[in-house]
Formats: sequence, structure tokens, C-alpha cells
Amino acid sequence: MKDKLSREVFRFSSPPSVKAFASVAGKMESEGPLGEYFDICEEDSYFGEDTWEKAESRLQKTAVQKVLQKAKLDASDIDFMFAGDLINQCTGSTYGMRDFNIPYFGIYGACSTMAEGLLLSAMAVNAGYAGYALNSTSSHFSTAEKQFRFPLSYGGQRTPYAQWTCTASGAVILSAEDTGTRVAGGAVGTVKDFGITDANNMGAAMAPAAAFTIKKYLDVTGTEPSEYDAIITGDLGEVGSGLMYDLLMREGTDIRKVHKDCGVMIFDGDVQDTHAGGSGCGCSASVLCGYFLRKMKEKEINNILFAATGALMSPVLVQQGETIPGISHLVHFTNDKI
Amino acid sequence: MKDKLSREVFRFSSPPSVKAFASVAGKMESEGPLGEYFDICEEDSYFGEDTWEKAESRLQKTAVQKVLQKAKLDASDIDFMFAGDLINQCTGSTYGMRDFNIPYFGIYGACSTMAEGLLLSAMAVNAGYAGYALNSTSSHFSTAEKQFRFPLSYGGQRTPYAQWTCTASGAVILSAEDTGTRVAGGAVGTVKDFGITDANNMGAAMAPAAAFTIKKYLDVTGTEPSEYDAIITGDLGEVGSGLMYDLLMREGTDIRKVHKDCGVMIFDGDVQDTHAGGSGCGCSASVLCGYFLRKMKEKEINNILFAATGALMSPVLVQQGETIPGISHLVHFTNDKI
Repeated sequence: MKDKLSREVFRFSSPPSVKAFASVAGKMESEGPLGEYFDICEEDSYFGEDTWEKAESRLQKTAVQKVLQKAKLDASDIDFMFAGDLINQCTGSTYGMRDFNIPYFGIYGACSTMAEGLLLSAMAVNAGYAGYALNSTSSHFSTAEKQFRFPLSYGGQRTPYAQWTCTASGAVILSAEDTGTRVAGGAVGTVKDFGITDANNMGAAMAPAAAFTIKKYLDVTGTEPSEYDAIITGDLGEVGSGLMYDLLMREGTDIRKVHKDCGVMIFDGDVQDTHAGGSGCGCSASVLCGYFLRKMKEKEINNILFAATGALMSPVLVQQGETIPGISHLVHFTNDKI
Repeated sequence: MKDKLSREVFRFSSPPSVKAFASVAGKMESEGPLGEYFDICEEDSYFGEDTWEKAESRLQKTAVQKVLQKAKLDASDIDFMFAGDLINQCTGSTYGMRDFNIPYFGIYGACSTMAEGLLLSAMAVNAGYAGYALNSTSSHFSTAEKQFRFPLSYGGQRTPYAQWTCTASGAVILSAEDTGTRVAGGAVGTVKDFGITDANNMGAAMAPAAAFTIKKYLDVTGTEPSEYDAIITGDLGEVGSGLMYDLLMREGTDIRKVHKDCGVMIFDGDVQDTHAGGSGCGCSASVLCGYFLRKMKEKEINNILFAATGALMSPVLVQQGETIPGISHLVHFTNDKI
């Protein structure tokens, strides 16, 4: 198994390239510190539709249309796609993608979806199963809040460590051609449950999974945090990031100097009142596809680990007294020749 | 791309073997025509837990424990697993699997989940990414009915073409070793939407996807229905099966002589009052892992196509007037030397 270094860790022998990437952001995300980086900013939270669920499908569809356009490809050129989102029955993806007629693998990794899809796509392209594989995901503040927490019109106060579900989407096409930035490797996540029961504190629920996956990749590849321009987590937010540092420090690993969290980056918490940061599948997907992959393309950064994190949170099971498991999948992008 | 014959269709150059399979069924499924074939039959619909959601996690966990036992493997021997189910946030799988510490890919294909997972596992084993890859899925009558239709205590009448969500689970381990039955190939499904809006008529919503995927595999591999001992659909039920025949006949393909539908097989509709048949991820999974893979192992049958079908149904979007897309992934099992 030449492409695998351990049970979890891959280093690809034919590293797939990033053919194109695209991002779409809502109004609030566009007004944040990364607003200038997104391909499309949409003021209308309904995206021209008449319900929020339909809006999210439209949002993700828009990101996929944009990435196809940027790649100068038709939907019929794509071998297959991996997509998923937070909405029950993953309808942001299934309803958003049904018009493209692309062979479709539905995935569910909560906010880790972009990394899960990228890893599966990279495995497929590396093995020669696909010339082009597409990944997309999305989240929408209004669909997520009403589904996971309270009706929006209830107007409840948010806790200081709550995160703000982003209205955003990202899409990436991986390719067998060498087009620059490549997926050098990655790590499959494992479900980790440290007993968090507070559905408003997702950063804490996801921190153990992120620490586990990042540590595993560093250890197995024999690399140090300082060798990366950035080690990026999906959306731990400020609270979860601190907890992850603690967990990693206990194991002798300090990633603080190179760590970036998409949830912390996407909003200006002081000005935008978003509390501990952004969250949602679209958070890490849009920050990866808006900011990081652009900076990689422009060679401002050349070597990053992208560890999107998902809280596998169920409102029904939390109401039944259950804890919240988390997962984190990791993708290693590099501009280096391999 | 030696392993691919077309955009959708795979024929594996190193066909993965079925190392072990296991099935768990609830009381009603155990009393049906296939009752004797399931590994474990459980009378208690709570599976010893205090809620139905926890029961479903326990159900799927039991199937995974059983398949590991039958394979004489520990959880730590498994490279990674693919799992998913119908419950929101796929908690039957995530909560059921969290104690195994197996690297985990969450998938969502509604009732096509077993075929989607098997296809991804087979791709992974064929490429050398995994020595052992595990798939599991489940469904539970009580969790599904309350989530997708009505509160159980409402006691509503069911339509004649309604299907009965099975309380059942199936698990399969694929292996790089040659252990007999092998996965010769498969086809990735595409989301198909023919405009069905009746959430009680899922067979109709899934029939176009099944017809598309089966036709694609037969055409691309240049094989005839008569070359297979069975062409199996997941859970079209009686209504959906008839519609699929019509769609295939229009294209000149007649699979009626070899067609079996897991939803039709699992219940005796006249005696058990289950209307058009069984449904749910656990329906096709338990019939595959209880009946068909056993018959393959015993060489009573030697060549089958398993096309599990999923209605990507969302109660919220149906209430908003949306239609129901369907998908069907296909897996080809053979005892022939390849």
C-alpha cells in the first residue's frame, strides 16, 4: 500500500492537482475581514428563492457553477462529485446538484465535509478513477439555526462561546493534470467523543478530533508544525482553538505559531458580534476556496494542512442527554514538487 | 484509467473480496419470509436502550460487532469504514460507531447507503488504500416514521403504495485477500428527479434512478440480464418495481425474469399488512447481508447486481412543494474467477 503511511495517513504517489476553486458568501461574511477574497458575494439571504432551504441549494449550486466556469469545464467533464451539508437529508447538496447530472457520492461529515470530500476525491484521482473530481458543500445561517437551535423569530440570546453559522459555500475540482497546487496527502478522521453536552459549545466538541488528526499526520509523516505555512482548522472558533492547543501541548506539540482557524478568520468578532467565531460546512469551505487556495496559487504560501472539523451534533440526541461526538479530516496541500 | 469503463462504471482490476457479512433484524422483519436468514433477531424494538434513536445506534453497533466476530477481526484491523443512515445527522452511524475508533467516512445516500459504501470500499481496497474496509447502515421503523411522516401515536392510515421502514442493519467487510465472492465492478449513481411530490410514494421517486443505473451497467459492460442470477433493487417495493420495468422496457431492456426487490422480499404483504413492501437503509442492507451474500457463499447463486435505491426525501422541502430526487448505486458481486 504505497500510498498509505499508516492506518489513517496517506501520502499520494500521483498527487492530484487543484484545477479550480470557487467561493460564494452571504452578506455578513462579505462584510467580514475576508470579504474581498470571495468570488461571489450575495446580499439577498434568500438567494432569489422563496425559502431558506431552497436558498441553500441555490447557494451551493452557484458555487459549483462558478468552479466549473473557472476551470473552463462542463458538468459532463466531471467524473463524479462528493457533496454534503448540514441540512437534514443533505438537501443543500442533493437538490442543488440534481440538475448537473454528475455521478454523485453523498457524504456527511458535518462541518468537516469539505475535507472529507477532498480526501475521497484525492484518493479517487490518485488511483486513476477520475480525471476530474468535484467537491462542494454549503451552510446557511437561517437553515442551520432553525434546525439545530431555536426558531430565528424566537430571538434568543446567544452564549459567549456560541458560533455563528456562515452563509457560504465552497467548491473545488481536483485533477490528474499537474496544474500547480497539489494534494500531497491527508488523514482520515476518527469519531471522538469527549463528553460535551452543550449544543452551543461546538468548538469544545470538535477540539479533541482536530488535535487527534493533526497530531497523527505530523507524527506519521515525521514533520514539525514549523514546516507548514499554516495548519488550518475548520471552525473551532476561539474557545475550541484554545482547547485544541491544550490537548496538543499535553502531547508535546505546539502549533500556535502556524495555526489559523477559519471560524476565527471569517468574522471580526468585536465589530460583527459573532461571539466565538463562524461555523458551518460553508465556513471552512469558503475560507479554503476564497482565501487559502488563492494564496497558494499566488505562491504567498506554499505548504498547508487543512483540518476541517465537524461536530456530529444531533438536537434530538442532545435533548435525550447524549454527548456530541466530533470528527476532523485533514488534507495536505503543497506547491512543492513531489 | 484501467479500472473504469465509462464515467459511471467500474470493473476492478484487483477485485476486492467479501471477507464477512452480518445482519440484524427487528421482530417484524424476523417474522417475515427471510426471518431464518438473519444472524440476529431482536424482539425488543428499543434494543435495550431508552429511546428509539439510541436503539438504532445499538442496532447498527450490534451488526458491526457481529461482522467483526464473523471475520475474526478486531476493530483495530479495519483500515476505515463507510457508514450512514436515515436519521438526521446520521446518528445511527456516528453514535453507533464512536466506540470502535475506526477511521470513519460518513456517507448519505438514503436507502442506497449500503451500495454507496460498498462501492467506495471496493474502490479503496482495489486501489490498495485498505486491507480491510467496513460498511454498515441501519434503519428503524420508529425513528424513520416519526422523522419523515407522522408521530407514531397519531395512528394515521397508510396509503396502499406506502412502504414500511425496516428495523434492520447490515454490515460487510471487504478485503484484499481472495476469500470467495468478489466485487467485480459497480456503477456510481446520479441524482434523478422525475417530479414525484408524494412522500408516501418513494418507490416512484426511486424507480428512474434504478432504471438509469442498471441500464448503464448492462450497456457499458455489454452484458444481458440473463447473465445474472439476480438483479436486485434496494427497496422499490411493488409499485416502484413496476414503474422501473416500464422505464427499462421503453429502452428495450427486460429484467423481470431475474429481478428481485429487497422491499418486496422482506415482508409477506398479505399477512403482515406492510402494503407496497419494506424500505429503509436497513432493508436492502439486511437482505443483502442476510440472504444474498449467504446464497453467494453457498454457491446457490454466483453472479448478482445489487442496486440499492435511495429517495433523497426531505419532509421540509416536500412541505415547501418540492419534488423528491432519487439515486441508485450498483455493486456487482461474482463467484467467477476474474
